[in-house]
Amino acid sequence: MTLYQQFAEELKQQIQQGYYPVGQKLPSIRAMSQLRGVSISTVQESYRLLEDADLVYSKHKSGYYVKSPLKTASLPELSQPEQRPVLIDNWQEVLALTMTESSQHFLALGRGSPDTSFSTLKPLQRLMNENIKQQSKQVFSCAKGNGLLKLREQIVRLMQHSGCQVHPDNIQITAGCQEALSLSLKALTQPGDIVAIDSPSFYGSMQAIQSNQLKVLEIPTHPQNGISLPALELALEQWPIKVLQLIPSSNNPLGYIMPEKNKLKLLALAEKYDFAIIEDDILGDTVYHYPRPRSLKSYDSQQRVLFCSSFSKTIAPGLRLGWVAPGRYSTMLTHLKFVSSLGSASLPQLAVADFIEQGYYDKHLRLSKQHYQARRDIMLHWVQRYLPEQTKVSFPQGGYFLWLALPEGIDSFQLNQHLRPYHIGIAAGSLFSASGKYRNCLRLSYANPPTEAVEQAIKILGQQAQLLLQQSD
Amino acid sequence: MTLYQQFAEELKQQIQQGYYPVGQKLPSIRAMSQLRGVSISTVQESYRLLEDADLVYSKHKSGYYVKSPLKTASLPELSQPEQRPVLIDNWQEVLALTMTESSQHFLALGRGSPDTSFSTLKPLQRLMNENIKQQSKQVFSCAKGNGLLKLREQIVRLMQHSGCQVHPDNIQITAGCQEALSLSLKALTQPGDIVAIDSPSFYGSMQAIQSNQLKVLEIPTHPQNGISLPALELALEQWPIKVLQLIPSSNNPLGYIMPEKNKLKLLALAEKYDFAIIEDDILGDTVYHYPRPRSLKSYDSQQRVLFCSSFSKTIAPGLRLGWVAPGRYSTMLTHLKFVSSLGSASLPQLAVADFIEQGYYDKHLRLSKQHYQARRDIMLHWVQRYLPEQTKVSFPQGGYFLWLALPEGIDSFQLNQHLRPYHIGIAAGSLFSASGKYRNCLRLSYANPPTEAVEQAIKILGQQAQLLLQQSD
Repeated sequence: MTLYQQFAEELKQQIQQGYYPVGQKLPSIRAMSQLRGVSISTVQESYRLLEDADLVYSKHKSGYYVKSPLKTASLPELSQPEQRPVLIDNWQEVLALTMTESSQHFLALGRGSPDTSFSTLKPLQRLMNENIKQQSKQVFSCAKGNGLLKLREQIVRLMQHSGCQVHPDNIQITAGCQEALSLSLKALTQPGDIVAIDSPSFYGSMQAIQSNQLKVLEIPTHPQNGISLPALELALEQWPIKVLQLIPSSNNPLGYIMPEKNKLKLLALAEKYDFAIIEDDILGDTVYHYPRPRSLKSYDSQQRVLFCSSFSKTIAPGLRLGWVAPGRYSTMLTHLKFVSSLGSASLPQLAVADFIEQGYYDKHLRLSKQHYQARRDIMLHWVQRYLPEQTKVSFPQGGYFLWLALPEGIDSFQLNQHLRPYHIGIAAGSLFSASGKYRNCLRLSYANPPTEAVEQAIKILGQQAQLLLQQSD
Repeated sequence: MTLYQQFAEELKQQIQQGYYPVGQKLPSIRAMSQLRGVSISTVQESYRLLEDADLVYSKHKSGYYVKSPLKTASLPELSQPEQRPVLIDNWQEVLALTMTESSQHFLALGRGSPDTSFSTLKPLQRLMNENIKQQSKQVFSCAKGNGLLKLREQIVRLMQHSGCQVHPDNIQITAGCQEALSLSLKALTQPGDIVAIDSPSFYGSMQAIQSNQLKVLEIPTHPQNGISLPALELALEQWPIKVLQLIPSSNNPLGYIMPEKNKLKLLALAEKYDFAIIEDDILGDTVYHYPRPRSLKSYDSQQRVLFCSSFSKTIAPGLRLGWVAPGRYSTMLTHLKFVSSLGSASLPQLAVADFIEQGYYDKHLRLSKQHYQARRDIMLHWVQRYLPEQTKVSFPQGGYFLWLALPEGIDSFQLNQHLRPYHIGIAAGSLFSASGKYRNCLRLSYANPPTEAVEQAIKILGQQAQLLLQQSD
């Protein structure tokens, strides 16, 4: 093997491991040569080899870019949920999903937890131990009010990456994003009010809507551009919508990023029709490309956006550590947090503040995003290989969820039941709808390493889907 | 000094340090002789000396008992709150109280936190560290549903001490007692409903009542026997009361234990008038005498009692670890917990389950109760010495709160302001009322060691109260 073949092979592996993610520009030939201590001509030859192998493409006068290893699959269509406010009633199904944990004997492919086995989380364990030893008085006492200032200062710094300028006093620490969403809804609504949401939408926030005795109006949503603004405006003309709740950056379950111009339009609508916006940014920091997209909150001159997030998808859900930047609703949120749970545990706040401040969070985020992006491509590959041909699939820009639309006629609840004997679980699509839509859809997580067992599971998923398809004909 | 004088002195110190609490029987003469390796006659002589010094008294054919070092102070009267349902509106005052922490420069004598400096908490720190190292996967994942079985099993065991037979499946883990109370209220009521409470009552649960848009009806309560059942029945005749919420074992702020016969009568009333009971047992395990009193829940054959508690007063509030045994409302509580915060952090659950299982909790509880009882007596002594003569004061049977009724005309809010320049804070009485009563009352905590600084603070409290009293004449 020549030197440039060897170097090309090395780069190929790094691309496949996600070290150079899809869409990213490779270092310039000169830079790469200096970086790796190989000659300019070796780099030139290797880049050409990678281009021949269809792994990168060159842009005139710009350089070489990493190509998606996939043929472009068809995206699901714009969603078509029920066009009237409805009550939510699928708690038993949600409970069943959330109670199935992955174990040695069960692959929970529908679950929402991140991979917590990355070595970049080790420092967090150390910091927790140190705080228990050195800050025991604080660890044993409950952080009242807004939460620990030390952490709020770090959060404010993180939020600058999405363009937000928020004061630490305007951050309320919560027990995860769910508490942030739940308290925000409570601050904004009275029983009977109507809340509009993107659709499909996260089942957890829908349960909060249900429990606050609110009605939900699902707005058609596109898997690439997000919520349809014309559809939203139509709904606003027709119904007295109090709140819009949505996940604009790295949507769960669709994976899209809302285009910038739509964000501005949405805020104009919010002003025109005077409604508040709950922006769920829980996956915003996991967007693969740099810089991460701006948040709605960053454009919010009127303080009508309640920005909710947590470290559950970026670090670990076991911390139960989230926050809300509640804009003008700040006083109310502090009261509701007190009522809900007095305050938040100090240990996770102390340890995570240290983790961010000492630069570990950035490192961890960088590594995990690279892995998630690489795992997306592998999962997409398997889905296209093993699922029925007409299957449509999302192309997520962050996070670790795929949304699949199987051919009509396949019921994903039934499919899930057929997978049980194989010790495999998926998240059925109708969990993500208030009106029982998306029965042919499902959500898959690619958070965990793409092992042979996972490939095998996707193969079985494909076979069972095929069987159901044949039965439905 | 003779040997028996020396031994008597030793015992005297141990009594004053709370090693032998008030009301407790000293070991028999024979047992003490064997225990300490001194002769029978030495013990006999020392016991007699202690009796002469008014530190112990002898009961015929039973032995020697530790005497309260105090003259009996007058108890406050039966409370006389507003006799109609009212809305609660004192959040700013509650916030101000909960945000004042004790520090080197400030003595927060009104705060509700336990002493977390006992050496018996050391093993908990070790267990937390061990779990972080050895159970990192579980520590990083969120415990959904009811919470970790391992902890629920230990809780069920603890609850047997109050006579409860509950299955671990009927325990819901929460973020402290506040979440337990808040979710219980939500499960039982609709906005506009009336909730009856003992009065004075814990301000945290009153805020939960307010936030659920409920009205509150305060029932006259006696500082020794608790809620007045005749007054409650009168209220039940007059108003459609949905829920009664109370703290029957080691009441906050009054410190009483509800008599057994009243518990049975109360449950009969609950059946007759068909209302649910939220039993706040957060201080139940801190009752000084053994065995601890039975809970209302232990008599609850109809599953209408929701038993709420936590480890915030017995171990540390920073754990945010509580539970509810919700009887027939179990399914609803699991849903509301999911909506409120998805689940609870795993680390405190793992560590506290180990802490209980390995016997550390019992040890810690024994030690801290002895200290609290001794501190009560010292604080009572100071209160009687330094506060205006007509001051009435509760005689708590557990926990670490004193309730003081100052002479009419002294406003404890004003008093609190006068104490600020001295860096001392108290909890003003009206925080414990929905109708602005108890303006002449206040709550003092004796959780922390009775240092000279605390004695000095009580002295200043007395002087300022005296000044206000003179001004009011």
